[in-house]
This record gives sequence, structure tokens and C-alpha cells, in this order.
Amino acid sequence: MLPTPVSMDITEFRKRGKEMVDYIADYFEQLEERQVYPDVEPGYLRPLIPDSAPQEPESFEDVLKDVERIIMPGASSPACTELETVMLDWLGKMINLPEEFLAGKDGEGGGVIQGSASEATLITLLAARTKTIRRVQSENPELTAADIMSKLVAYASDQAHSSVERAGLIGGVKIKNIPSDDKFTVCGSALKKVLHEDRAAGLIPFFFCATLGTTPCCSFDRLLELGPICNKENIWMHIDAAYAGSAFICPEFRHLLNGVEFADSFNFNPHKWLLVNFDCSAMWVKKRSDLTNAFKLDPLYLQHCHQESELVTDYRHWQIPLGRRFRSLKMWFVFRMYGVKGLQEYIRKHVKLSHEFENLVLQDKRFEICAEVTLGLVCFRLKGSNELNEALLKSINEARKIHLVPCHLREKFVLRFAICSRTVESVHIQFAWKHISELATELLNA
Amino acid sequence: MLPTPVSMDITEFRKRGKEMVDYIADYFEQLEERQVYPDVEPGYLRPLIPDSAPQEPESFEDVLKDVERIIMPGASSPACTELETVMLDWLGKMINLPEEFLAGKDGEGGGVIQGSASEATLITLLAARTKTIRRVQSENPELTAADIMSKLVAYASDQAHSSVERAGLIGGVKIKNIPSDDKFTVCGSALKKVLHEDRAAGLIPFFFCATLGTTPCCSFDRLLELGPICNKENIWMHIDAAYAGSAFICPEFRHLLNGVEFADSFNFNPHKWLLVNFDCSAMWVKKRSDLTNAFKLDPLYLQHCHQESELVTDYRHWQIPLGRRFRSLKMWFVFRMYGVKGLQEYIRKHVKLSHEFENLVLQDKRFEICAEVTLGLVCFRLKGSNELNEALLKSINEARKIHLVPCHLREKFVLRFAICSRTVESVHIQFAWKHISELATELLNA
Repeated sequence: MLPTPVSMDITEFRKRGKEMVDYIADYFEQLEERQVYPDVEPGYLRPLIPDSAPQEPESFEDVLKDVERIIMPGASSPACTELETVMLDWLGKMINLPEEFLAGKDGEGGGVIQGSASEATLITLLAARTKTIRRVQSENPELTAADIMSKLVAYASDQAHSSVERAGLIGGVKIKNIPSDDKFTVCGSALKKVLHEDRAAGLIPFFFCATLGTTPCCSFDRLLELGPICNKENIWMHIDAAYAGSAFICPEFRHLLNGVEFADSFNFNPHKWLLVNFDCSAMWVKKRSDLTNAFKLDPLYLQHCHQESELVTDYRHWQIPLGRRFRSLKMWFVFRMYGVKGLQEYIRKHVKLSHEFENLVLQDKRFEICAEVTLGLVCFRLKGSNELNEALLKSINEARKIHLVPCHLREKFVLRFAICSRTVESVHIQFAWKHISELATELLNA
Repeated sequence: MLPTPVSMDITEFRKRGKEMVDYIADYFEQLEERQVYPDVEPGYLRPLIPDSAPQEPESFEDVLKDVERIIMPGASSPACTELETVMLDWLGKMINLPEEFLAGKDGEGGGVIQGSASEATLITLLAARTKTIRRVQSENPELTAADIMSKLVAYASDQAHSSVERAGLIGGVKIKNIPSDDKFTVCGSALKKVLHEDRAAGLIPFFFCATLGTTPCCSFDRLLELGPICNKENIWMHIDAAYAGSAFICPEFRHLLNGVEFADSFNFNPHKWLLVNFDCSAMWVKKRSDLTNAFKLDPLYLQHCHQESELVTDYRHWQIPLGRRFRSLKMWFVFRMYGVKGLQEYIRKHVKLSHEFENLVLQDKRFEICAEVTLGLVCFRLKGSNELNEALLKSINEARKIHLVPCHLREKFVLRFAICSRTVESVHIQFAWKHISELATELLNA
């Protein structure tokens, strides 16, 4: 097994952490000598840093020097916004997103950090709602927005996360499940069937949320079939890859994202599996004007002299809250201190460990694997009744040595073993399986 | 002038900060010895800490000891939720909120931390929308939700923050401005007039957002007139006191909150003026069931054994995102290390400094004060044209010694001097006024 890439061991953490405390204290001591407003011009930051994340790790000292050189002169504003735009470009390139999703110097797309995938789904559903209402009204000027709203319908897999249903609830539109197949994925024909029925009933399909890596079993909707349908039918396709998205930095998993070129928006959570602390949910859109058209309000106290400039991104139009934290710093530090290679190793190690667990399950005839193991999640259960598996879960969680969260896959109650800790090693997998296996024996003997 | 209450000077910050770095490093070194799941029962935390915030400051050591004694055994869950509920009760008591808004041991209300006032307004508008749709449907079963949505109308002052209009936009409901009077406040008769017209036109008024401390000039809507109207007319009254709310911890400013007893929900931002770092927006509701009725979805992977218990608050039903950070720790540290008295002194000092600035303006015949100075904001301008004042603002902001954000009050372009830094002293006020005054002289001589 490869060693875990460790960007910083505990000894270095103690040293660097204390240096940071001094850095902050020094800042406050020298506060009065600093300018209240930065001297920089819009777009100042991008030329100062590389076009993409480094492949090899850099040192903490290198990053901190750049904080002093690049960030501090740009203060929190515009540095906060500009670093975020560039970091989302870096991350987009790491997963090989089509260029249309990147901001670059003059792109129409771009990325933003949201707090959670729930917010990304909601924001994109609302943008799609506004876009559709305007389009339908331009074709049918006699219809009111309320008339159109009452006919709008959004879709997601029956395996999609509950936050999609909630986005529909908040947005005041119908939301329907598309039945997934025996691999728990949505295919093109399933979507087509529902669209056909709904159009016939006078509804207006406007939004489809595809899932890559569903919460219950990490299944993948078939983007290559679904995307062209959505494009043809004027339906906004959003992709929720909250957990799985991080894996796409590895070339061998990138095929799971094929079809993203048909999407209008894409989201995943680096805080889930890319070593960036919570919260940091990365969202990209192909046309940022779709967001600003839906949300832009400009009172005088929020106006500034650069707001009509193409160079300036006003993220307040891209999200629900108005205020923002400087979350892109976390990405900058992590991407540079691990390097792309270090992050790839981290993902690969987790996937390898999940297959190690899968093999342990497969070797025990009492158990079955319930869904294909693609990334770091293993869905398994005792062959037998749901009651038996509920009892097993209860005994596992009550023992408090490991913790599992269950799901239903169709009629089956299923246990989910998720590899998700930064420090997990093979020894933990072996420990967990031995423990589960012993509890199963106790249960079956009882 | 009173000295600023300093909970921690820079020398102590260096010492304590480094201790915290070691605390975190020790935690990771000992991670494997810790239990994966806490042993505590729901409601474990409340009895372990006092009922209300201390009046006098406590030491950092005292707080940290309690982190080890009270928080660590409860891990991040349920400690994160339980501390938040209790901290919102502490803060509610500090501003003397009616008991209905507190969670206590068996209250129907309670508080939650949102990221921003925008989110609080949106969440309460959405809860009001659901509540109204259900009520109207129960009275008129022939109406669809879409029929009702198309008639719903929400209100706020023409001085309200743009986030209220945005909440209406997101919620898919009409939102109308209520004209404010010559003091920039909304009074009962103004609301009544619009309600009368809208009911006559067949609309359904359902939500009024009152503002305490408007963004342009810190004016206060008349709750004591507005509240009874809302209650009688079945309109949810939400109060947005984003900035001003912190001042209500001082008895001499608490009268500004009179009438809150008529409200359904109330919000202010301790991150604005109560020394809690961004983000931390405190929101209370009288009936938390209004939130859970609007947002509750319960997939199996989010269920837990205590979810039907009255003792457990599931904040995921109270907000847009699903995940949450442990923001109540910030409140706990700040409230204890300053004590209520220290925080009151901090507010009073800022208000005193704003009056100091107001007096400097009043002594200069070239200038005028444009709105009553109640808290830490002074609205002022040169007597003369808007162009003149726009030129003054430009010269102030281009000099980059201080930074001002303008507003419009009716047809007037107005400069806003806001006291908002933790370290502000009289010397800064004097410096700023001298600077503004000199730039005005230059401008008028030109």
C-alpha cells in the first residue's frame, strides 16, 4: 500500500500553527499602518499566480509568502473574490471540466464556493426557473409568471438526495422522481417517458438534477443519454456530484463525468473528499448571466465603481447570503501543499481500501454486496431479512467502535461502509470488518 | 471616555493561540483513543452550564476547561446543536426577548444560527408562505397551491434591505414596499392603507418584514403599531434588526425593540456588532413547528433514534443548507470572556463615538445631519447638490485614509459614517473628521 500523502505532520502543524498565531497578532499590532482600501485594479490577482494547481507539493512557507505578496495587498476585497474565481478554475482544470465552465480571462462561465450542495441545487433550480419563465413568457405574452410557475416541473432520480426535493419545495415548483434502473441509475429512456407524459398533461419540464454518486449507494446517472435529451427539450441539467466529484481528479475515474459537456451547471463538495475543511462546495455554471439575471438587485449601498466591468465578479448575485467568507484560501493551501499528485494518491488510497473491505465481505458467505463498489462506499448486508440487518446495525452502532449509516435500496435495508477519514489505513478496515463479523456471529447465534 | 473592554490583549492572544494549536495537535495525536460516538443522552448539555450569560468577564482558561468537560464528551453531535440552542437562549435573555422565543426546557420557540440576515428573511418568508397556503387551502379546498401563491404578497419598508426583495424573488411571491414617513420609518397607517388596497384587489397579504435599524440611516419601524395589525390580519411579522439588534443588550436601547412580542420571528447579526466573528446571524421563532412544517424531509440516511423526541432539535429543518458548522462556540467564548457588562460597554462606546462625530458635523455650518443618530451610524452631507456630495465622497474614498459607503435618503445623496471597528477610539473620530473637513474645504475652494 502507498503511504498516505501527508502534507504536514503533527510536529510541523504545531510549528506552523504557532507561526500563524504570531502572524495574526503582528497584523493587529500593525493595523494602523495599513491602508484602509487596496490599491489594486480589478483582475490584479490572476497574473500573479500560476494558471493551474501544481502537480507536486509545495511547502507551507511558499504558500505563506504568497499570502503576504498577493493577498494582503488586495485586502479581503477584491482578493477574496479573485482568488475564488481562480481557485475554481484550478479545480475545474483538475477534473478536466469543459472550458465553457471556467471563468478564464473572458469566459462566460465560472465557479463559486457555496456552503453546501443543497444550496447549489437550490440556486441552479431558481436560475432555471427564472430563465424558463422569461422564455415561456416571451413566447406566450398572455401568461403570467404565476401561470407558468404552476406548470413548471423539475426532476431527479428516485435515488437523488433529499435536498433536491427540498429545492423544489422552496422554489414553489413540482418535483418528480425519475425511476432508476436495477443499477440505481437513471437512463435516458426513463426520463423521456416521464417528459412525454408531463408534456402531454400540459406541464413545463424545466430542470433535471442528475446525480453522480448517489447518497444511498454511489450510483451514477447516465449523463451521455440524459444530457442530449435535456438540451433538446430546453431543460436545465444540473449535476450533483457532491461526494463523487473529488474522484474525477484521477484520470481513471474521469470517465464517470463524461457528458458534463451537456450540463448547465455542476457541483461537488471538496469538503467531503478533497481535504478542504467544511464548508466548501464548488459550483460551476456555463453562463454566469443565468445567475445574475435571476438574482441581481443593486441598492446604492452595494454599488461600486467597477460593477459594470466584465472583469469583476459579484458573487453576491450567485448565492443566497450576501456576506461571504474567504474560503478559497483553504483550497489554495490544500491544492499547493498536497499537489495534484498528492490529492490523487489520497483518493486512490480510499478507493483501494473500500475494495479491501468489499473483498472481506465477499469472502464471507453470510453477507452480500448490494451495489457496485466504484469509489469509497461499500453497500452490504447479511443475506436475510431487513429485521436481521436492522439488528446488526443496532449492535454495531451501540458498540460505538465504528459508526455506520444505513439506507434502503428498493425494499432492502442496507448497511453502508464509507471510507472518509483523512487518517484511515488498512488496519482500520481489518479492525472494522473483524468487529462487524463478530457481531454478526453473535447475532446469528442468538 | 471609558476604556474599551479588552477581553484579551495581543500578548495573551499569542499565548492562548499557541495553546490552542497544541490542543488541536494533541487531539489528533490521541484520536484513536477517543470513542467514535458520544455516550451522552439528548438534553445532556443544558444542565451543565448556567442559565444565562455571566455579567462579569471570565478567563480563557475557565472557558477552555469547560470545552474539555462539556463539549468534548458530546463530540460535535449533539454538542453542536445543544450548545447552539442554549447560546441562543442566553442571547435572547441578554436582549430581553419574550420567553415565547426561547427554547428553554419545553418551549415551542427557540433560536438558531443562520449565516446571514438574508437567509433568516428567506427562511421565515418561506415558512410563512407554507403556513398561509395551508390555512387558505383549509378554508378554500378548491384552490390549488399555485392559485394561492399567485395571490400572496409580502411587505417591507421602502428603506428595507435589498435582501427582503430578494427573498420575495426566490420565494416566487409578490413583494411590495410600504412608504416610510419623514423619519424613514414605517407606521401602522401606511401598512393599513396598502393592506386595504391589496385585499380589495383580491391579494393575500401574508408576510411583513419590519426593520429595526435600516441600512441607509438606521431608522426604526414602529413595531407597536405594526405588530397588532399583522396579528389581526394573519400576517407573519418578521423583524430584521441585523445591525441594531446588538444594542438591545443595553437597557437604555431596549425600548427600540418594544413590540417584538407581536412578531413571529426576529433576527440580528452578532457578527455585525457583538464581537462574534463572521458568520453568525441569530434568528428566533415563536413556533419552531412553523419551520419544520415547511422544510422537513426525512430520508433514512438522515434519520436517528431521537428524532421524534421533543428534546432534540434538528436544525437541518431550520435552514437552507444541510451541513452545519459549530458556530455557537464563538458565542460561548465571546459572551463569557467579555461578560454582558463588557459587551454593553463596547456598544455604549460606539454610540458615544457616533455622537462625538455628529457633534463635529453639527458645529460645521457647511454640513447637515440627515437622519436621527440613534446608534453607531451618522448620515451627513454638505448642504448643497448631490453632485457636490458625490464629489466629496469620491475624494474621501480616493484618498484611502478612511472609507465611506453612501446612500440615498429620498432624493438626497448622503454620506454614511459608521462606527464599526473593534479598536476604534476618539482619536480616530477626530482624525476622520479633520480629514473630511479638509477635503470639503478643498472641494468648495475648487
